[in-house]
Amino acid sequence: MSETSPAQRPVIIDGLQYCNWSEKIFRQMQEGGVSAVHVTICYHEDFRETVANMADWNRWFLDHQDLILPGRSADDVRAAQASGRTAIFFGFQNCSAIEDDIGLVEICHQLGARFMQLSYNNQSLLATGFCEPEDPGITRMGRQVIREMNRVGLVVDMSHSAERSTLEAIELSERPIAVTHANPSSWRPTARNKSEDVLRALAQSGGMLGFSLYPNHLVGGTDCSLEDFCQMVARTADLMGTDCLGIGSDLVQDQPDSVCRWMRHGRWSLEGAADPAAFPPQPAWFRDNRDFGKIAGGLRQVGFDQSEVDKIMGRNWLDFFERSFGPAGGA
Amino acid sequence: MSETSPAQRPVIIDGLQYCNWSEKIFRQMQEGGVSAVHVTICYHEDFRETVANMADWNRWFLDHQDLILPGRSADDVRAAQASGRTAIFFGFQNCSAIEDDIGLVEICHQLGARFMQLSYNNQSLLATGFCEPEDPGITRMGRQVIREMNRVGLVVDMSHSAERSTLEAIELSERPIAVTHANPSSWRPTARNKSEDVLRALAQSGGMLGFSLYPNHLVGGTDCSLEDFCQMVARTADLMGTDCLGIGSDLVQDQPDSVCRWMRHGRWSLEGAADPAAFPPQPAWFRDNRDFGKIAGGLRQVGFDQSEVDKIMGRNWLDFFERSFGPAGGA
Repeated sequence: MSETSPAQRPVIIDGLQYCNWSEKIFRQMQEGGVSAVHVTICYHEDFRETVANMADWNRWFLDHQDLILPGRSADDVRAAQASGRTAIFFGFQNCSAIEDDIGLVEICHQLGARFMQLSYNNQSLLATGFCEPEDPGITRMGRQVIREMNRVGLVVDMSHSAERSTLEAIELSERPIAVTHANPSSWRPTARNKSEDVLRALAQSGGMLGFSLYPNHLVGGTDCSLEDFCQMVARTADLMGTDCLGIGSDLVQDQPDSVCRWMRHGRWSLEGAADPAAFPPQPAWFRDNRDFGKIAGGLRQVGFDQSEVDKIMGRNWLDFFERSFGPAGGA
Repeated sequence: MSETSPAQRPVIIDGLQYCNWSEKIFRQMQEGGVSAVHVTICYHEDFRETVANMADWNRWFLDHQDLILPGRSADDVRAAQASGRTAIFFGFQNCSAIEDDIGLVEICHQLGARFMQLSYNNQSLLATGFCEPEDPGITRMGRQVIREMNRVGLVVDMSHSAERSTLEAIELSERPIAVTHANPSSWRPTARNKSEDVLRALAQSGGMLGFSLYPNHLVGGTDCSLEDFCQMVARTADLMGTDCLGIGSDLVQDQPDSVCRWMRHGRWSLEGAADPAAFPPQPAWFRDNRDFGKIAGGLRQVGFDQSEVDKIMGRNWLDFFERSFGPAGGA
C-alpha cells in the first residue's frame, strides 16, 4: 500500500472562472479535485459594488466551509488540497473597482484581491482594451498603479488588453504579470487572443499564460476537439517553454445570457438591451470543473510527460502564486 | 546590570485618540513609550469615506514604519513594544461606516477595524446615543450586528451610547464589550459619563472601561487635578475591581475647532456652522502622548501598587485585545 501525500499529489488550479456560484458548482470543484480557482468579482463594478461581491463571497465561505475557503496565498492552496477543498482567489477583469483612487489598490489587496486586469475591452483609466481602434499604451495613472500593484502583491492581468498596452505592462511591471485566460492568436486569430510577440515577452519575463476554454477563443468554437486544443498547447510550449503555462478556463457556468450583455456593455453603452449576445455552449470535453482530468489526459496524448502535465494543470500557477501575492521583496 | 526584557516592561496602551495625525504626534507616542493606540477613523463617514481614511493610514504606515505599524492583534502590540513603536488599532465612533449592510461588519474587520460604537450621540440604525431624549434600546438590526461583531472579533464600544442601549448591548453581546472613553457619572454627572449600573454590568461581563482625559468628562474640566483624577480611578476600582480598567484618553490633539463641529453635527444638522463649539485645553498634566508616565505616577500616589498601575496603564487592554480581536471560539 503506497499512499501519496497531498503535497505530492498533482494540484489542479484554474486561472479564471466566472460562474453563477452555487453549492452545486463548489461540489463539482471538489469532485474535480480543483484546489484553487481565480474567480472574477468585478467587470464594471465600482469599489462599493465590488465590496458587496466580496461580502457575498464571505457568506459563501461561511456557509460552505466544507467545500471552499478564502485564497490569499499559495499556502491556502496547499491547505485546500490537504482538506479536499477549493481555495477561491479574487480577481477583477477591469480596474473600475479602484475607481480613480490609487489607495484602493492596497485596500483591495487587503480584502483579498490577487489579480486585476488593467482594462477590460475598452479604454480604462490605466490601459487600453482589445476592442478599441487605438491603443495609446499604459496611461500616467497606469504607470503608478502598476508600481503600487507590484508593491502590495496584486498581479497585473492583461487578458483583455490590447497589444501595445500589454507589451508595455510586461515591460513596466517589475514583477511577472499574467494573461490569465487567452490563447495564441496564431491558432485562432482574434484581437482577444495573444500575438507571438506578447507570448514571447510574457515567457521571458517570468509571466503566466492561462489557456482559455471559452468557445470564442477556440478554433471551431464549441466544436473544437480536445486533441486540437492540446496540440495548440504543445505548439505554445515550443514557443514559451512549459514553466509559464497553465489553464484559465474562463468557465462561465449557469449564467443567464443577460450576464453576457452586462460583461460587454456594463453601464457604458446604450446598446446592451438590443444585443442578442449569448454564451456559447462549452465543448463536450469541458463542461464543468469535473472535466480537468480530461484535459490532463489529452495533454499526455499529445506527448507531454507527466511532470509537464502536472505543471500545466496547476503546479506552475502554484509557483506563480507563491512569488506573486506577497509584498515586494518578500514578506 | 539587570536588563528588563520588552515582554516584562510595562506596556502603555491608550484606548482612544482622535488627533490631527502627523509625524510629530507619532514621535510623541514613541517618546511616551505608548505601544498601542485605538484611533478613531469614522464619526459620520459612510463606508467609502471610512475606506479613504484607512487608505490615508496605509500611507502613514508606509511613510513612518520606524514609528508606527498596523495593529490587528495583541501580537502587534508586543511587536510594537519590542521595536519601540506604536501599533495603531482602527475604530469607529459610529456605525455609519457599515451603512445598512451587515456584510460590511466582516469587510471592515478585514480592513483592520477592531472597535465600533453602536451609536455616536444620536439614534443610529443600531442603538441610541446619549443626546437623544428617548432610548428605545438596541434595534432589530443592532441585535444582528452585535452577533456578527461577536463572530468576527469587532468589539462593541458603547462610549457615546445612552443608558438602556448600553445595558442591553452588555447583555446581548456574547463577548465582553468596551466603553473605551468615559468616566463615572457619579464623579462628573453628565449623560455622557456612565452610571454605576453600567459600570457594574460592564465589570461583571468582563468588559473594559477606558478613563477619559477629555476635559468635558472631568470634574473641573481643564483645571481637574491629577490627584482628583486618580482618586476617581481608585473609587472606580472599588466598584469594578482593577482587571477591567484602562485609559482611553480621548486625546484630540492639533485639531482645528471645525472638527469639533463635524463631530457634533456631521451632515445630519443645519446648525453646525453657527455652533461656537471649540475644543477645551487639556489639563496641564496630560498634554499629549508623552504624559502617560505622569498618570502612572499619580496612580501610585493614590495607593495603587505597581502591578495594578501596570494593569491600568496597558496590561488590561492587552489582555482584552488578546481575547477580543480574533474570530469567536478562537482562531
